Amino acid sequence: MSLLPDLAGSRVALVGLIGGLLDDEDIAERHARALWSGICEPGDGDAGSLVDACGAVNALALVARDDARVVAAVEGLDRRRADDALARWRPRLAPAALDAGLDAARRTGARLVVPGDATWPSRLDDLGRHRPLCLWVRGALPERPGPTVAIVGARAATSYGEHVAMEIAADLAGAGIRVVSGAAYGIDGAAHRAALSAGGVTDALLAGGVDRAYPSGHADLLSRITRTGAVMSEVMCGSAPTKWRFLSRNRLIAALSDATVVVEAGWRSGSLNTAAHAASLGRSLGAVPGPVTSPTSAGCHRLLREFDARCITGAADVREMLGLDDELLPGADDWVDQATALRDALSARSWRRVDDVAQRCGQSLADVERGLGLMLLDGRVQHGPAGWRLVVGR
Amino acid sequence: MSLLPDLAGSRVALVGLIGGLLDDEDIAERHARALWSGICEPGDGDAGSLVDACGAVNALALVARDDARVVAAVEGLDRRRADDALARWRPRLAPAALDAGLDAARRTGARLVVPGDATWPSRLDDLGRHRPLCLWVRGALPERPGPTVAIVGARAATSYGEHVAMEIAADLAGAGIRVVSGAAYGIDGAAHRAALSAGGVTDALLAGGVDRAYPSGHADLLSRITRTGAVMSEVMCGSAPTKWRFLSRNRLIAALSDATVVVEAGWRSGSLNTAAHAASLGRSLGAVPGPVTSPTSAGCHRLLREFDARCITGAADVREMLGLDDELLPGADDWVDQATALRDALSARSWRRVDDVAQRCGQSLADVERGLGLMLLDGRVQHGPAGWRLVVGR
Repeated sequence: MSLLPDLAGSRVALVGLIGGLLDDEDIAERHARALWSGICEPGDGDAGSLVDACGAVNALALVARDDARVVAAVEGLDRRRADDALARWRPRLAPAALDAGLDAARRTGARLVVPGDATWPSRLDDLGRHRPLCLWVRGALPERPGPTVAIVGARAATSYGEHVAMEIAADLAGAGIRVVSGAAYGIDGAAHRAALSAGGVTDALLAGGVDRAYPSGHADLLSRITRTGAVMSEVMCGSAPTKWRFLSRNRLIAALSDATVVVEAGWRSGSLNTAAHAASLGRSLGAVPGPVTSPTSAGCHRLLREFDARCITGAADVREMLGLDDELLPGADDWVDQATALRDALSARSWRRVDDVAQRCGQSLADVERGLGLMLLDGRVQHGPAGWRLVVGR
Repeated sequence: MSLLPDLAGSRVALVGLIGGLLDDEDIAERHARALWSGICEPGDGDAGSLVDACGAVNALALVARDDARVVAAVEGLDRRRADDALARWRPRLAPAALDAGLDAARRTGARLVVPGDATWPSRLDDLGRHRPLCLWVRGALPERPGPTVAIVGARAATSYGEHVAMEIAADLAGAGIRVVSGAAYGIDGAAHRAALSAGGVTDALLAGGVDRAYPSGHADLLSRITRTGAVMSEVMCGSAPTKWRFLSRNRLIAALSDATVVVEAGWRSGSLNTAAHAASLGRSLGAVPGPVTSPTSAGCHRLLREFDARCITGAADVREMLGLDDELLPGADDWVDQATALRDALSARSWRRVDDVAQRCGQSLADVERGLGLMLLDGRVQHGPAGWRLVVGR
């Protein structure tokens, strides 16, 4: 901690945010990552590389010391680029402002999740040096995320687009697939609402801090999301959503999801940015067509034509794109035995976690997850925050 | 002619249908092909192989003699299949009925076009043994067909589908691209009408004989089509349109066109059959998306998803699919000289044929066609039945 003499005061605020038993070094690293979320803009690859190379605490100390020579050496950058990076970060190394951000997080009940935590979404690691340094989370992230689909689209959606978004989101969420979106008006909001209505779980990625509902008209929706899912951001509480942060946020939506489905999007919609991230990350990409006379579908048609997106007409197409029907199907005979054992290991009354179920039925975690996924598709089990349980009467 | 003693009577009717100077052997072959169009069903590959192997006259004589042994030997078929083929053909070898068909062709002004004729569409040769044995044509076929696009779709089209079909057909036809369709109600009719309204050329492929307007409500439309384009069928006049003939006719629509665009189609629409033919012939295939809530677009979405059809939102997408913008573009400097020479060889007042233009400007036919195609896209020339002319003021 001696590396951060001028920031020691903010530690008190941080300790309130983290649970469990951590040693001082862990606490310091988490603390430093939390501070970084207020120091660099999201997706700053130089910050990502520096933190990866020497740890968040040491990286922060280099900023505090304004040590461009060492930053350049650690990152393998030329000196000028290191100067530029420090010039970006230094002005934000203001203890009062950073403490205010941590305090806002504490007040709003946001938890800090960093790489290596049990609930850190490992899919984000595919972003490499553009991986977020931490996530601020309201609500709950699963330890073992199952199938996840991003449903995004135009703010200025038509009733057609909202209708289709809701149909798809409700169907997927009702089958236990996590629905991710950006909490905007229009398609995003329709997807979140329908997922919740179907009793499913949905996550919202915000461009600004999770302490402020954006858009404010979705404050109630965001609160409802946090009851079973998560409202997340990689920027510190108190941060305003800016154009850059919306674009950066889009990479998180794409990275968190197995597939991204664009429901309605204008020719230059921000959703195309999310789609491009999905494609570049090797995630599946789908687009819902609409009337060619509707400008709100022009972006979707562009995705079909130029990005080789899959034509999505309903939830079944999404499941097929995810390969859920095929991949989860084990050999027929094996499956009968496995399924019987799995059924015996589950309860209709109490929720059981995957590792608990695995122990009870003597199968590997992977087999249990696979089997539960299949049973979920058939509606034979339910999936909730506390684990899995049998659906009575199936 | 001695091979066809019992059919000699029908020769008189045939001679009235063919122009130019032909020797007796030519006339006999044409005559025999005309008769075959009333003897076998369209796309009968055994008939195609037999005629290709020994000529239409000899093939007909083998049917008249009911000679399964020779048919089997000529075609390399087993005896049973030759028997089956003869059993299909023999009952229709009825001179009175065939003569009535030829007579109907004469009365309706239908011309016979056979492989090797100047106006035989060589694209049909890609059908191999399923190539039609002849075409009955009302109106005119070009000697050198330019870019040709099939626009097809549902009979029970929506106003959305008809609107989009008309927009695309008018744009393409107005730019000198030939629009092919099947003369049905709905999308087909909209495409034909819009092509004509734009001053373009359109062709209709019928499932029954060209002497009967089908559907009868399109009698006037079909007559208007024949003024600049062609109404065609491979079956003899007097033949009724049957389900099989509709399906067979679809392969001709696909084969005649550089690209097939399906505008609206239900999940099991006949247009998907046309699309499948286009794909199997290596032709470009496009589909216009629509609302996923519209059953009339379900077939189009299926084409996008399962057949890798290109997503078509307008005429520009069709031109891009055809590669018209790229392929017609010669090297920049050469083109300036060529274009000047081409311009000088054209007239704004009189129509000139491609070979006439080529002679006047001293360029090859291929170069002239290429250059005219480019000028057509820019609206600098017009293309009509009598050739090409300059557009004044461009």
